[in-house]
Amino acid sequence: MMPAMEQNLRIPGPTPLPDDVRAAQAAAMIDHRGTEFAEMLRETSHGIGSLIGASGDVLLLTGSGTGGMEAAIVNTLSPGDRVLSVNTGGFGDRFAAIATAFGAQVDSLAFEWGTPADPARLREQLATHDPYAAVLITHNETSTGVTNPLQALVAEVHRGPGDPLAIVDGISGLGAIPFEMDAWGVDVVVSASQKAWMASPGIAIAALGPRAQEAVQAARMPRFYWDFRQASNWSAKGQTPWTPAVSVLFGLRVGVQRLVAEGPARTWARHAALAAATEAGLEALGLRLVAPLPYRSGTVTAAWLPEGVEWSALNAALRGRGLAIAGGQGKWAGRILRFGHMGAVALDELTAAIEVMSTTLPDFGVSADAAAASAATRDAYRSATEAAA
Amino acid sequence: MMPAMEQNLRIPGPTPLPDDVRAAQAAAMIDHRGTEFAEMLRETSHGIGSLIGASGDVLLLTGSGTGGMEAAIVNTLSPGDRVLSVNTGGFGDRFAAIATAFGAQVDSLAFEWGTPADPARLREQLATHDPYAAVLITHNETSTGVTNPLQALVAEVHRGPGDPLAIVDGISGLGAIPFEMDAWGVDVVVSASQKAWMASPGIAIAALGPRAQEAVQAARMPRFYWDFRQASNWSAKGQTPWTPAVSVLFGLRVGVQRLVAEGPARTWARHAALAAATEAGLEALGLRLVAPLPYRSGTVTAAWLPEGVEWSALNAALRGRGLAIAGGQGKWAGRILRFGHMGAVALDELTAAIEVMSTTLPDFGVSADAAAASAATRDAYRSATEAAA
Repeated sequence: MMPAMEQNLRIPGPTPLPDDVRAAQAAAMIDHRGTEFAEMLRETSHGIGSLIGASGDVLLLTGSGTGGMEAAIVNTLSPGDRVLSVNTGGFGDRFAAIATAFGAQVDSLAFEWGTPADPARLREQLATHDPYAAVLITHNETSTGVTNPLQALVAEVHRGPGDPLAIVDGISGLGAIPFEMDAWGVDVVVSASQKAWMASPGIAIAALGPRAQEAVQAARMPRFYWDFRQASNWSAKGQTPWTPAVSVLFGLRVGVQRLVAEGPARTWARHAALAAATEAGLEALGLRLVAPLPYRSGTVTAAWLPEGVEWSALNAALRGRGLAIAGGQGKWAGRILRFGHMGAVALDELTAAIEVMSTTLPDFGVSADAAAASAATRDAYRSATEAAA
Repeated sequence: MMPAMEQNLRIPGPTPLPDDVRAAQAAAMIDHRGTEFAEMLRETSHGIGSLIGASGDVLLLTGSGTGGMEAAIVNTLSPGDRVLSVNTGGFGDRFAAIATAFGAQVDSLAFEWGTPADPARLREQLATHDPYAAVLITHNETSTGVTNPLQALVAEVHRGPGDPLAIVDGISGLGAIPFEMDAWGVDVVVSASQKAWMASPGIAIAALGPRAQEAVQAARMPRFYWDFRQASNWSAKGQTPWTPAVSVLFGLRVGVQRLVAEGPARTWARHAALAAATEAGLEALGLRLVAPLPYRSGTVTAAWLPEGVEWSALNAALRGRGLAIAGGQGKWAGRILRFGHMGAVALDELTAAIEVMSTTLPDFGVSADAAAASAATRDAYRSATEAAA
């Protein structure tokens, strides 16, 4: 059963596919051990590396972003290793759970959901505890719409005793918001094709710094499918160790080409403007945003559900009008709503989403001024775009 | 750089995509936690279950087939478990290597490459050794073109002391050659979307029998991404725990619909006829087949390279003429060639492939009668088709 109309897909991933990505995904299958594939793999991994300031290996693995997180853990750590999880939400929980499942001893430095991680508290934690082998950090916490101050956090990691590895979940941020692998000293970062990269889900991205390469050799957690040694060896030949998601790579290549053509500064400014527009539109509707300034995410905006509004009923009504947004996860299920605005999204789609909100909220007893919300959305976008120009 | 002509993709996976699969893969992205996705997931897993005679869970995991093999191991076994690998080639090696990487004590019951596993030797192995927790079996060994007598092997497994689990790599056989999950007593089988299922790579398929479900609860190998408990819980809601390869699933749904419409008996007969045609064509060219009757695979045919022919030169020449076949793997690299004939392949494509071989081999000093080879290919197909009717 296909939807009667094209949906306004405003969840924080998978994100809408541009037409040229869709067309690329429909190409005839090719041999994953042939020259055409090798060219595609090299172009795509080099392109991603250039966009995130990474001079080392960029590995393209077939799996979800969570698979990339698991790969980052099992390739750099050993059972019994002391690991610190800088935890600001549901995806911080997940990163810690993966490390625990594979035998790491995980301490949690938890921050209240909706607030960012505080570099000063990280410094204190590192200074007052035995050395950690690694610190796990979520760059952009999709469950709360908070972007953590990653550069400052990573700097604290490397000032800590024993100079732990900085292992970063960059899944919902990379390619959309500022990130500099080498300059910030990130050791491992993972992302996924269905976020700012504008492709279908199915490819996890892992970039490695020089210290991570050493850690990969020393790590003793059990691994086979995710083994970076295999991925790296085969990548040098323009191949992957196991049959990869070729059609997803067809699309990812096009998404990366689009971002390379746009250039990171313009991409980051565009996402900042889309975020500002979403925030302004939701506030004009009377909704209260979850994240404080300046930690609001450039890719996903979370707002508290208005008093008395039941999420599943609101969600059903919105979807009936062609708008798909996300609700809360884990302990915030039924308490917040989340708007994705990463990848191939234009102001018109955000304005349309805010308009659907405007016309739907009154059915739930929440008065809304549709014209004012729409104007606020457009004004904020214009202001942010002008400020960046 | 796109190839100038559509390639005749005769590698043993990924297989060619039918036009309707390609079109489906180009559909607009949808919410993986919405109703449309749930319908697709249910239809596809139920369809696969019906085609392989499986009444239990059929889980669709985002990953390569090798990821499915790892999932089968880590979800049913514990470190230190005694495991027997029934090993007939490169993919048997891989299955054993995965179990070893995760801490199983693996014994190998190895058969010479190119020969099938012998149920009598399996019986003897089981009778003369301490009980095994599981026996790993490759149904269709892609590296040698041999189909093992799976039903007889699984029967021996369950007669063995301690009634080990029968864990089957069905990647390159399922959906193309006879397989009956429940009737044969297979406990876990894995496959992958890019084989007989006619979709792009990126989805691993895992079917579980009732004893496997129990083993999943008891297993203590570390796991997170591949955890069948998570996959099974979310599958009951029409979802996957992590963002799945949605576009690959769009294609897989269509591939499964095609197989359901054709019906397993006809699908199996079609693959048997395609195999007979390939074998006859290669033999008419003077090539010697690797596998003995009746163990020749219905999905991939391996033949010895003619004396003095260098694989990489032959391969380059064939690819220059639009034909992509596979060479040997591991210790058989440079010694054999392999023709894939699974999924969406018609007699005309096989005949065209044999014709390219006929016109290319003479450049390597091997005389070939193109007309005779082409006729042998077509005759064998017709005979097999008539015999099955």
